Amino acid sequence: MEIPPGMKIQEIVSSLRLNSHIIAARVDGVAVDLDRPLRRDCALDWIPMDSPEGLDILRHSTAHLMAQAVQGLFPGTQVTIGPTIEDGFYYDFNRESSFTPEELETIEARMRDLAASDLKITREEISRKKAIELFRSLGEGYKVAILEEIPDDTVSLYRQGDWVDLCRGPHVPATGVIRAFKLTGIAGAYWRGDERNEMLQRIYGTSWHSEEALSEHLRLLEEAKKRDHRKLGQELGLFMVSEAIGPGLPIWLPKGAMVRSILERYIVDLERSLGYQHVYTPQLARTDLYRQSGHWDHFKDNMYPPMRFEDKEELVLRPMNCPHHIMIYRRDLHSYRDLPLRLAELGTMYRYERSGVLSGLSRVRAMTLNDAHIFCLPEQIQSETVGVLRLIERVYRDFGFKDYWYRLSLRDPKDKSKFVDNDAMWDNAERYLRQALTEVGIAYKEATGEAAYYGPKIDVQLNDVLGHSETLSTVQLDFYLPERFGLEYVDKDGQRKRPVMIHRGVISTMERMMAFLIEHYAGNFPLWLSPVQVRLMTVTDEQKGYAEKVLRRLQALGWRAELDGRNEKLGYKIREAQMAKIPYAVVIGDRETKNQTVSPRRRGGQTLEPMSVSAFIELLGEEEVARELVGDKPTAGTAD
Amino acid sequence: MEIPPGMKIQEIVSSLRLNSHIIAARVDGVAVDLDRPLRRDCALDWIPMDSPEGLDILRHSTAHLMAQAVQGLFPGTQVTIGPTIEDGFYYDFNRESSFTPEELETIEARMRDLAASDLKITREEISRKKAIELFRSLGEGYKVAILEEIPDDTVSLYRQGDWVDLCRGPHVPATGVIRAFKLTGIAGAYWRGDERNEMLQRIYGTSWHSEEALSEHLRLLEEAKKRDHRKLGQELGLFMVSEAIGPGLPIWLPKGAMVRSILERYIVDLERSLGYQHVYTPQLARTDLYRQSGHWDHFKDNMYPPMRFEDKEELVLRPMNCPHHIMIYRRDLHSYRDLPLRLAELGTMYRYERSGVLSGLSRVRAMTLNDAHIFCLPEQIQSETVGVLRLIERVYRDFGFKDYWYRLSLRDPKDKSKFVDNDAMWDNAERYLRQALTEVGIAYKEATGEAAYYGPKIDVQLNDVLGHSETLSTVQLDFYLPERFGLEYVDKDGQRKRPVMIHRGVISTMERMMAFLIEHYAGNFPLWLSPVQVRLMTVTDEQKGYAEKVLRRLQALGWRAELDGRNEKLGYKIREAQMAKIPYAVVIGDRETKNQTVSPRRRGGQTLEPMSVSAFIELLGEEEVARELVGDKPTAGTAD
Repeated sequence: MEIPPGMKIQEIVSSLRLNSHIIAARVDGVAVDLDRPLRRDCALDWIPMDSPEGLDILRHSTAHLMAQAVQGLFPGTQVTIGPTIEDGFYYDFNRESSFTPEELETIEARMRDLAASDLKITREEISRKKAIELFRSLGEGYKVAILEEIPDDTVSLYRQGDWVDLCRGPHVPATGVIRAFKLTGIAGAYWRGDERNEMLQRIYGTSWHSEEALSEHLRLLEEAKKRDHRKLGQELGLFMVSEAIGPGLPIWLPKGAMVRSILERYIVDLERSLGYQHVYTPQLARTDLYRQSGHWDHFKDNMYPPMRFEDKEELVLRPMNCPHHIMIYRRDLHSYRDLPLRLAELGTMYRYERSGVLSGLSRVRAMTLNDAHIFCLPEQIQSETVGVLRLIERVYRDFGFKDYWYRLSLRDPKDKSKFVDNDAMWDNAERYLRQALTEVGIAYKEATGEAAYYGPKIDVQLNDVLGHSETLSTVQLDFYLPERFGLEYVDKDGQRKRPVMIHRGVISTMERMMAFLIEHYAGNFPLWLSPVQVRLMTVTDEQKGYAEKVLRRLQALGWRAELDGRNEKLGYKIREAQMAKIPYAVVIGDRETKNQTVSPRRRGGQTLEPMSVSAFIELLGEEEVARELVGDKPTAGTAD
Repeated sequence: MEIPPGMKIQEIVSSLRLNSHIIAARVDGVAVDLDRPLRRDCALDWIPMDSPEGLDILRHSTAHLMAQAVQGLFPGTQVTIGPTIEDGFYYDFNRESSFTPEELETIEARMRDLAASDLKITREEISRKKAIELFRSLGEGYKVAILEEIPDDTVSLYRQGDWVDLCRGPHVPATGVIRAFKLTGIAGAYWRGDERNEMLQRIYGTSWHSEEALSEHLRLLEEAKKRDHRKLGQELGLFMVSEAIGPGLPIWLPKGAMVRSILERYIVDLERSLGYQHVYTPQLARTDLYRQSGHWDHFKDNMYPPMRFEDKEELVLRPMNCPHHIMIYRRDLHSYRDLPLRLAELGTMYRYERSGVLSGLSRVRAMTLNDAHIFCLPEQIQSETVGVLRLIERVYRDFGFKDYWYRLSLRDPKDKSKFVDNDAMWDNAERYLRQALTEVGIAYKEATGEAAYYGPKIDVQLNDVLGHSETLSTVQLDFYLPERFGLEYVDKDGQRKRPVMIHRGVISTMERMMAFLIEHYAGNFPLWLSPVQVRLMTVTDEQKGYAEKVLRRLQALGWRAELDGRNEKLGYKIREAQMAKIPYAVVIGDRETKNQTVSPRRRGGQTLEPMSVSAFIELLGEEEVARELVGDKPTAGTAD
């Protein structure tokens, strides 16, 4: 399309009578404000408000709107930075005291006023030197500090009304565009995320293209809050964190430990049935081991400090388990006939994370990974990958996961410097992975340039209730560590060759999996995972003898049952069992004792007819075998 | 008996025509040489050579004999120290080069010559100053160093022929008494056990009252060598130690890991069936936690160095699990009704041991304890102890342990300063422990003064093939930590009171238990513990199809079976299965394939008649249920 030079994009939008939701544009691929004049031939794309990029711009502008409101209401408050995050934004302020919930409401009201005024948002480019003078005169020391570190000669400012911020943009054209927003939280945060710096006051908010989208988001947020594993973990007595032991080091309480122990046995048994060999290796090693593996050079910031002993021994807690398994591989000389060798471990590892990012079970400083390393011939990559993918699919079926997708991360052939140098290996490996995905019939997205340094990988992304995805399972090829550690096998032709290593995790760390499961099930663990499966409850002491007999019978068969024989009202006991999210609350009153029956109630509230204990046991059994515990058992065959 | 003053003990022995095996005596409870003259009224006891004390003196004299031989044969070799140890003795020499096995024989021959000369062994008391001059003139710098640290004014020397040593004694009267001895080994050892000092040459030996006792000991030693868990652990592929990971940090290889995982599930399931609640707690904590518990003050030398982080966080690997469990107890307010609370964990702990004492799985720097802490009311001590003792008895039956004994360690009421100050508590607790042992019908030895600082305890001592005992299980009362951590429960009367803690371990650490089991079974694990239970072996490739069917059928039923389908001679395959100590080697030849049978051979060599696969499976099942896996199941009752 031919347009007069200097025409503003906004004018084109108006002339084309485009959707009023267009809030920015992309010129030759670069996002810009609508009031940017066009001066030369270019490719032009629209950015609608409800696109991911549009929402990001909208949220950024909402952050500005909030900062304008805050500075108007609380003079003397300094601004620092205000980025967007998933589904929202925040802005960090320097202010003596924390913001109160009441102040948040006041800020939100002022934001609505400013939005109603529909202030025009304008961009201005000035020299860095002038910008420093400007912000110094405004008393904005943090902006001055930021500017002093920017290498550019020219920087951009954004103004709305009498308010100005240093910002790259782009932004929406006017504050009136911002309509559906909400401030969602207050937190403390260190300047530059460093706990040695001063504490700032952070306000979180969210902003959407429509009121409907906002309320749907707030509804999901509410749902997510109810499912928050930190909240449920506390309420259901699953885990705790102790100040005396240290942050990021969760303690699994008896009920949570029961779930973990079921998870561990489940995955270990399943892996063994598939030819994995489990091992136990120490959780620390001489620092030199991690020098050799390269972790020390590339990962040191996330490692614990080494421990130096009197006799000059130096040990360090391991950040990863791979070098330990490599030492096992190296114990023996391997023939091509012995491979693949699949070494697995519930391997505990240690990562140093800043205290500010620690959270419940999902960001911790010690974690136990469902880890395995497959040492195989290059020509076994595909079949081994197929095996892992089938295992993942099987496990997800058992847990009832449906909302997930696969990502194949490849090398960027245009930027080979970021990847191990071995063209043939990369080409083959990527082909094998694609073929493996196809063989199992799995759809996937490709992510060029997202491979690890040491090889391509497949990640499985699970979506949570808010639709955010995180990696749970992973299959990573590695051509690098076998080289670093000089791993070998003797091939058919008698030559010594390098095996390939496959790092893979199926149910991730016990911590992350548990956090995910709590939120996925909203604490309502299926029968096979429930720490307590059945709670019996008497109506009066009269039934205690019979109830104890039933209890022993259930326990003898391996059911996790307990008895509430307290002198409390039945309704109260039932409510407590519901709160504890126990799958079956079983009432034993006079009638049941007389007839030698039980009256089970399902967790959801459904009351079943009184039934014999045998019938109840059968019912439990049927619910449990809906998910078989170990492997798809091969048919017994006719060997006899 | 009236004896003339100044008469030597030896003369009394001769006059009484006592057993020629009397080699020393005890005067008023103090062991002395036979040529000691008696000068006043005293109580006199004989020390025969074959008593524990007599053997100790004999071995000490044999160490002198060896040193005399060494210094005669290798002039310039300096002596350092030469104590007795269990069943023997050693002497550390300063010499440039190590002793060779040939030199050991030469030394032994020279010792026989010196013994045949029947040199009189005499004691001499001189001033410390003179002794220093003497040893300096002899060029014995180590003796000078030892003398310089002794506070006494007078010291004793022992002479035999022209050889002299600084020694407290007592000794046998003459070298001719020493007849049944053998030098058993050579090792390096640091002066004063400190790796910063120079390396010395140590020679080990053993000495007995008769040739018969010596050969029986050497036979047992041979047997113990064959059973040595380090040797079998290597041969059977159970565990390894890696130089790159570090000494004292064993790696459990797949087969060893399988045994460990059976042990872990066995004890966890058993404990759960008895009301223990398992937890997982982090293997490290803030150093302050161990300052509060007192471990830091009393146990620091055996702890790993703390790790200090940038943000001033300071964590340390835990030497014990108790404070972690205490944090769980403290999470909730407890009523007397909730107690006992039995918290259990397979808890990994870290102890810093000098590299010189590390050994296989039995002395390590990281270990996983079958740990539990019972928090109970004082009046529950007896019933809880009974529960633990019954559990121990049950477990020992399952493992087939028969050679063990109980030791009850009590406070020394004459030296209360070594123990927590609470008379009533000690009196009650000791009574409860005695009554618990009686209630279970267990015989025990009392050891006064051997209690822990914090309370009395019961240890279970297992004897190894050499008859040496070591503690496997323990029950320890603790009045101290509940006080240190201010633990409380609300009693019937509404008052807050202190619970008692019971520390208990049943199967000890996984490492120690595994070392013990390997030696106890000589690697022949019973069926339920065998990492591989059945190895099928084909005669030719013809039978592979049928063999694989049998394999799948066994595996589907949970049996740990594998198939040796290699093109090797059957005899060779059977030998390999025997070497691997697999309970059943099952031959599948043409006849078996045709008749759909199998021909099992037991580990000992017993060949069974060909039988159907069903019959073989039944046979396996019968052998396994000889030890039931989980608890004595309560009879199902008549609840339905």
